[in-house]
Amino acid sequence: MSSSPVAQVHTNGTNGIKKNDRSNLIPYASRLKDGRALAQDVWSIYNAANLPADCINLGQGYMNFAPPVWVKEAAEEALNQVQTNHYSHPKGRLRLREAIKNFYGPQFGRELDVESEILVTSGANEGQYSVFVAFLEPGDEVIMFEPFFDQYLPSVTFNSGVPVYVPLHPQTSGDKPTSNDWVIDFDELRRAITPRTKMIIVNTPHNPVGKVFTREELEKIAALAEEHNLLVMADEVYDSLVFGDKEHVRIANLPGMWERTVTVSSAGKLFAATGWRVGWLVGPPSIIQPTLAATTRIVFCTNSPLQEAVAVGLEQAKARGFVDQQRREYEERRAILTEGFDRLGMKYIMPDGSYFVLLDISSVHWPEDYPFPQSVEGRGRDFKACWFIAMEIRVSSIPVSEFYCEEHRTIGESYARFAFCKDVDTLKHAVERLQGLRKYIKN
Amino acid sequence: MSSSPVAQVHTNGTNGIKKNDRSNLIPYASRLKDGRALAQDVWSIYNAANLPADCINLGQGYMNFAPPVWVKEAAEEALNQVQTNHYSHPKGRLRLREAIKNFYGPQFGRELDVESEILVTSGANEGQYSVFVAFLEPGDEVIMFEPFFDQYLPSVTFNSGVPVYVPLHPQTSGDKPTSNDWVIDFDELRRAITPRTKMIIVNTPHNPVGKVFTREELEKIAALAEEHNLLVMADEVYDSLVFGDKEHVRIANLPGMWERTVTVSSAGKLFAATGWRVGWLVGPPSIIQPTLAATTRIVFCTNSPLQEAVAVGLEQAKARGFVDQQRREYEERRAILTEGFDRLGMKYIMPDGSYFVLLDISSVHWPEDYPFPQSVEGRGRDFKACWFIAMEIRVSSIPVSEFYCEEHRTIGESYARFAFCKDVDTLKHAVERLQGLRKYIKN
Repeated sequence: MSSSPVAQVHTNGTNGIKKNDRSNLIPYASRLKDGRALAQDVWSIYNAANLPADCINLGQGYMNFAPPVWVKEAAEEALNQVQTNHYSHPKGRLRLREAIKNFYGPQFGRELDVESEILVTSGANEGQYSVFVAFLEPGDEVIMFEPFFDQYLPSVTFNSGVPVYVPLHPQTSGDKPTSNDWVIDFDELRRAITPRTKMIIVNTPHNPVGKVFTREELEKIAALAEEHNLLVMADEVYDSLVFGDKEHVRIANLPGMWERTVTVSSAGKLFAATGWRVGWLVGPPSIIQPTLAATTRIVFCTNSPLQEAVAVGLEQAKARGFVDQQRREYEERRAILTEGFDRLGMKYIMPDGSYFVLLDISSVHWPEDYPFPQSVEGRGRDFKACWFIAMEIRVSSIPVSEFYCEEHRTIGESYARFAFCKDVDTLKHAVERLQGLRKYIKN
Repeated sequence: MSSSPVAQVHTNGTNGIKKNDRSNLIPYASRLKDGRALAQDVWSIYNAANLPADCINLGQGYMNFAPPVWVKEAAEEALNQVQTNHYSHPKGRLRLREAIKNFYGPQFGRELDVESEILVTSGANEGQYSVFVAFLEPGDEVIMFEPFFDQYLPSVTFNSGVPVYVPLHPQTSGDKPTSNDWVIDFDELRRAITPRTKMIIVNTPHNPVGKVFTREELEKIAALAEEHNLLVMADEVYDSLVFGDKEHVRIANLPGMWERTVTVSSAGKLFAATGWRVGWLVGPPSIIQPTLAATTRIVFCTNSPLQEAVAVGLEQAKARGFVDQQRREYEERRAILTEGFDRLGMKYIMPDGSYFVLLDISSVHWPEDYPFPQSVEGRGRDFKACWFIAMEIRVSSIPVSEFYCEEHRTIGESYARFAFCKDVDTLKHAVERLQGLRKYIKN
């Protein structure tokens, strides 16, 4: 989950009924007014439709290549059967739950129970939403680290929760900052916890920073979760994309944490199939069972043929060396993009995981009279930088202040997020274009 | 939407934290306690796993045959492209929205706007859920006719709504009752409307009764909706299955109703693909746009390859004469099942639409000492009848009192729901078995 070419929804609705105005006969619910649900978001501002036709899209986080052939063939096979075209069990197809058990069980160091500890969802996004439905009482507070994946916010507020923001602080004094230079101020985190705190979201590898949380950081978060009886949502959808010698630590595996942690995964990220909408949750029955009750009512079940294909993907991934090979391919893609920034002499955050690079755009300067659209006026400086780069350089990216609350947005304002989940040729082409930024850089 | 082999969720959770009980560390939300969300439902009681291995499943409403080959081939084609494996626009893939516009526009008598009047959802179920998210304020009342599709209830209560039940009354004094003998008491409907009434759900053709609401009935409902400014959710997922000379009337097409009606459709019902999870909503921008804001956060988008296949299905359906041919096939299936009941001399409700028949099981008597499981004790008499028939006759069905509130459940207690969305051989086989009921019938 990473991107949303989200439709713009008119914000002139009203909760009172206007006489003689047929367009607002039935007022929409007030929950839509919180959490930016009706606001114009970055995905619609930087949508391909608004940008030059030949703009290279490094904004949205989906691949411009297809899923592996052997996984696709499994989907075709499923389409040719009867049962795999019909309702799945709301828990997910048994074959997929068995495959998840076998693939992830060793990573969690336990025998997962396919009936009560695994839940297939309609993408990781719907899985997360279902957890909020299942656990949030009105006024319950949910801590999220900034920058945060933008879907968290309305998903929490739709379910009567209250988002509480704790920023990651970039300690990026050096010339070669990395994602792990973005750190938690644990005193700040502790102060954010109140008697109403119900949940904390830990996204590792992190979108958009690329940070892979260290064991020590996760141990400190775990200690606070235990002390305050918090549910931990471990959003680990990029778990297959951890680079170099970094270790992906699952907070669910830390002592005492299994019982309070639900771990979120995504077949879209793992198998380059973001449009398949298959994800899953792993956790204890006390979390999975209420979440099953929620997801059953929300979507009833997830599409069957693609579940079956993902099952085959997990069954064969190890023998095919798929994950390691894919990781090497992403490391190559990361290198192409970052070497392009190096050639420009621009600073960026070298990611240890995920498929995003944050480029420091504070050195980019555009003509004072440059014509910007209304949609980026009054937003962070990064909104203008991303617009300018998309229009003049013809490479799109996403402004990072969108992933911060108003109070903290200046932290994100120095960065644009570039996605490198694109084929090598596209990335090389983008890098060549980006050299055109040179004339706008003033250090 | 019709069936849910829904997982049994333990009901011993608690909203208070039990000391020393690691299984309830984090209390689930109180919204799960309403709307039977955690109760054992009929789909798990009458699940194949609990019944004889060779039991013929006429309980759950999914087909035992595959989608049309030409629609399946379109899915394979989509899997072989890049874009159709990745994120769709949250509104739905443009090709599918165009196909919906062309297929349904004439039925609605208007040029549908693909940007603001059509919304693809992850099954009709998720579409309905999104409407509740988008429109229900705490305490808003939603009127549903009984028997009601069981997913409505928790979908309303999860979103802080209050279900209000108005039963259809069977006027079945004759020997050959039909679904249109089930009628609304309009005084009763009027009395059910309060200042807090926000929405009314009209399901035509109706699951499980098979009733096709008449124009006159819909006009009376429409008049009340206008008088009290109600949003109408027209659940028309069985719109392609209207039999004989009955006319499917869309309430959205009645004068003044377009602006307050959202119509729900299902590709799973239309193309025998219940596991594809593709549905759509049609309505005015004032309803579609807030619902888009909701669905975008719930699922982000619907799976892409199967959307693309459904687009091809709609594009080609007319030229292939698909809908008419499918209707004739369902009429044949209906005839096989009902002639089997005729041979038994049992009363049933001849459906004018959908793929369900209600069998009057009040004449079926089982031995007094018959061993019933705990799960059907204390429920309506129909729960025992369905259990007995499944165990002894080896044909499963669903007790209809499940689709009533406690107060009205005796109306449904006389009926078992049999689904005829099965191939001809299976239905013939079931009918032969059902003749074994003869010895248990006492009129």
